[in-house]
Amino acid sequence: MNDEVRLIEVRQDIHADNDRAAEELRRRLAAQGTFLLNFMSSPGAGKTTTILATCERLSEHFRVAVLEADIDSKVDAEKIAAAGIPAVQLRTGGFCHLDAAMVAKGLDALDLTGIDLVIIENVGNLVCPAEFDTGAIKNAMILSVPEGDDKPLKYPLMFSVCDVMLVGKIDYLGLADFDVERLRGYVRRLNPKIEIFEVSARTGAGMDAWVGWLTSEIAAYRRICLD
Amino acid sequence: MNDEVRLIEVRQDIHADNDRAAEELRRRLAAQGTFLLNFMSSPGAGKTTTILATCERLSEHFRVAVLEADIDSKVDAEKIAAAGIPAVQLRTGGFCHLDAAMVAKGLDALDLTGIDLVIIENVGNLVCPAEFDTGAIKNAMILSVPEGDDKPLKYPLMFSVCDVMLVGKIDYLGLADFDVERLRGYVRRLNPKIEIFEVSARTGAGMDAWVGWLTSEIAAYRRICLD
Repeated sequence: MNDEVRLIEVRQDIHADNDRAAEELRRRLAAQGTFLLNFMSSPGAGKTTTILATCERLSEHFRVAVLEADIDSKVDAEKIAAAGIPAVQLRTGGFCHLDAAMVAKGLDALDLTGIDLVIIENVGNLVCPAEFDTGAIKNAMILSVPEGDDKPLKYPLMFSVCDVMLVGKIDYLGLADFDVERLRGYVRRLNPKIEIFEVSARTGAGMDAWVGWLTSEIAAYRRICLD
Repeated sequence: MNDEVRLIEVRQDIHADNDRAAEELRRRLAAQGTFLLNFMSSPGAGKTTTILATCERLSEHFRVAVLEADIDSKVDAEKIAAAGIPAVQLRTGGFCHLDAAMVAKGLDALDLTGIDLVIIENVGNLVCPAEFDTGAIKNAMILSVPEGDDKPLKYPLMFSVCDVMLVGKIDYLGLADFDVERLRGYVRRLNPKIEIFEVSARTGAGMDAWVGWLTSEIAAYRRICLD
């Protein structure tokens, strides 16, 4: 098992460097009052659709930009840009997560003048993105109903590092053997402080409660930064 | 971007060691005619359910064992064992993939006497498992309908390294904006030789065609190994 030992040592190194870069990024964004939200999930859980529906509801109050990340392709950034929202696509070229340096590079490519909120759509992966601080103020995740309610047992770190979880695609409830109360129990045992919202970006169900929470978080952050 | 360079160097090292371990494992299994199948997918795409339905259909012809991998928990191995199939759970403790050394360790914990087929259920992740040769004879993946048909654009390596792809949860077709022909086009551009089967482990649709293909692959392998 020599491979494992060697990999862990390098990881610790990288994590210390990354933590410093994340802190620096948070200071840079606080100086201008820009809130950074990191969105994570499995592939196909509905991040892009949920981000679009969230931006639409936030546009009354805030100016929003989106940083898209994928191993390859730029289809998500194109979808966001088509809705009139400034977007940049980061191609990680094989990397399974974003780190703070990659996010900083992406932000350099966006014009942040007057931007109140940047949403990061991280690589679709319930494992690696949870290990890297991106410099975000809040970590959000989506667990979609078709994925099953047992995922906190299998990917505990992701559920532990998030400030808020969206239970997504709730229009699929009833089709799947998915028990929201069982899920809430698993998640709260890992992370008693997490906020949980049940949503469907497609039907709009639950979106107002989630966006209301986000709005008050952004407003509170901006009061602290800009006062 | 120093982090990236350092990580890549270590990865190359690890990959060379892993490739050697994978070859050694393939020789060991060929000597006894045991076929190793590596199953990969996103979290919640239906690997465990599909493996159970596959084992049930194979049990007439072959003796099967299952190697389950998860970051944490042993719920999947318990489900498999409850169906009377020998199963071992590997807890990766944070690792986002299996490598050949971990698989060899798992096989040591199974009694392989008289076992014709071992199915590996890899960590739910469309990125990292694709990078590591587990020593398997064939790589299989499931893309489930709720995940969307654009995933080959975003996770090309996974679709490139697999010998066979199951389009899973086809009982969800019609509920989702999912075009099987568009998916087939994306996948064939990456991997013209891949076999594709549309299945629902829940309803049983398409399972006979997939299991028929697997049966003939196992039979052909065993003829070569044991003649």
